[in-house]
Amino acid sequence: MAAPIDFYFDFSSPYGYFAADRIDALAAKHGRTVTWRPVLLGAIFKVSGGQPLPSIPLKGPYSLRDIPRSAAYYGLPYRQPTRFPVATVSAVRAYYWAEALDPARAVTLAKAILTGYFQMDRDISDAKTIIAIGSEAGFESVAMEAGIGDPVVKDRVKRETDAAIVRGVFGSPYLIIDGEPFWGMDRFDQADRWLQTGGW
Amino acid sequence: MAAPIDFYFDFSSPYGYFAADRIDALAAKHGRTVTWRPVLLGAIFKVSGGQPLPSIPLKGPYSLRDIPRSAAYYGLPYRQPTRFPVATVSAVRAYYWAEALDPARAVTLAKAILTGYFQMDRDISDAKTIIAIGSEAGFESVAMEAGIGDPVVKDRVKRETDAAIVRGVFGSPYLIIDGEPFWGMDRFDQADRWLQTGGW
Repeated sequence: MAAPIDFYFDFSSPYGYFAADRIDALAAKHGRTVTWRPVLLGAIFKVSGGQPLPSIPLKGPYSLRDIPRSAAYYGLPYRQPTRFPVATVSAVRAYYWAEALDPARAVTLAKAILTGYFQMDRDISDAKTIIAIGSEAGFESVAMEAGIGDPVVKDRVKRETDAAIVRGVFGSPYLIIDGEPFWGMDRFDQADRWLQTGGW
Repeated sequence: MAAPIDFYFDFSSPYGYFAADRIDALAAKHGRTVTWRPVLLGAIFKVSGGQPLPSIPLKGPYSLRDIPRSAAYYGLPYRQPTRFPVATVSAVRAYYWAEALDPARAVTLAKAILTGYFQMDRDISDAKTIIAIGSEAGFESVAMEAGIGDPVVKDRVKRETDAAIVRGVFGSPYLIIDGEPFWGMDRFDQADRWLQTGGW
């Protein structure tokens, strides 16, 4: 059985949202599974020197054209969130709490969080919003709230982000397939070929 | 007659080299022409805060995998230059000097410079190398040497780079099609659709 694809993303990343819509199908096409690994890009940026897109001169304004155009290109609904980007620590904690219960349902939760942010302009920086989205996805609210505050979960989030940095992750989305890294939704075509041929 | 596509690139940019191989065909497919506009990305980075890829933590090491993989993906020969990136002011001046004589031959020169750097590891930061490449492409060496030192040509290079910044160019390659910007070789697919449909 071939190794799962590691799918790194930030809940506040539009390109991560696009990738989340396609990653499972890409993997399934090649008989692979996906390990979803949401991370805190802000923590990674402290190491990489990266910055949130909107704050970068020239590139920021460009991204506000490229993001909706890319959404249209991929055929995905997209609404620019009122607050962008936002802190996603509650979302990431909720994800890893849910993953410990049931990885498949955690993926459903992740997709609901991304949809809430990038289609419905919900404020996913607010733990209450995450709990509400979790409730709609069938998670028990009191348990999820406790999970978001659980030191074990907090530690898992920190370890996942630290491990991502060690593995070279600097952006969202970021795939690692059998050790080979692919940054960006626009590398899905190369990832597809890699999975097909096993190399260059 | 539809407007030409503006094709901005830096002679030291691998992704610009990939794009240079395809831009004329992309334009021709849609009955367009291309205005080649080499610029000095270093000057642009002073405004945008951008940095040469190899010096960026995490992203730099990634790029050294992504560049040859992308070359293989596009079916282009690629050899990582010994010195990378390099100053390209002589190359850009030679280009605009040649363009004033004959735009089509200037494009031939541009392709020869890119091939010299990314296939043959020639030091294109050296004006002597540029003049040698120009000579191989049929340009008279004494005239080109004078052109590279001509204040009118120097001023043209400065104006082109300043104009690029005003138009939002922050990377290489960068296309502007009827006012719509496309950054990166990996946006050729969206540019293709844009040219087909005239919008989103």
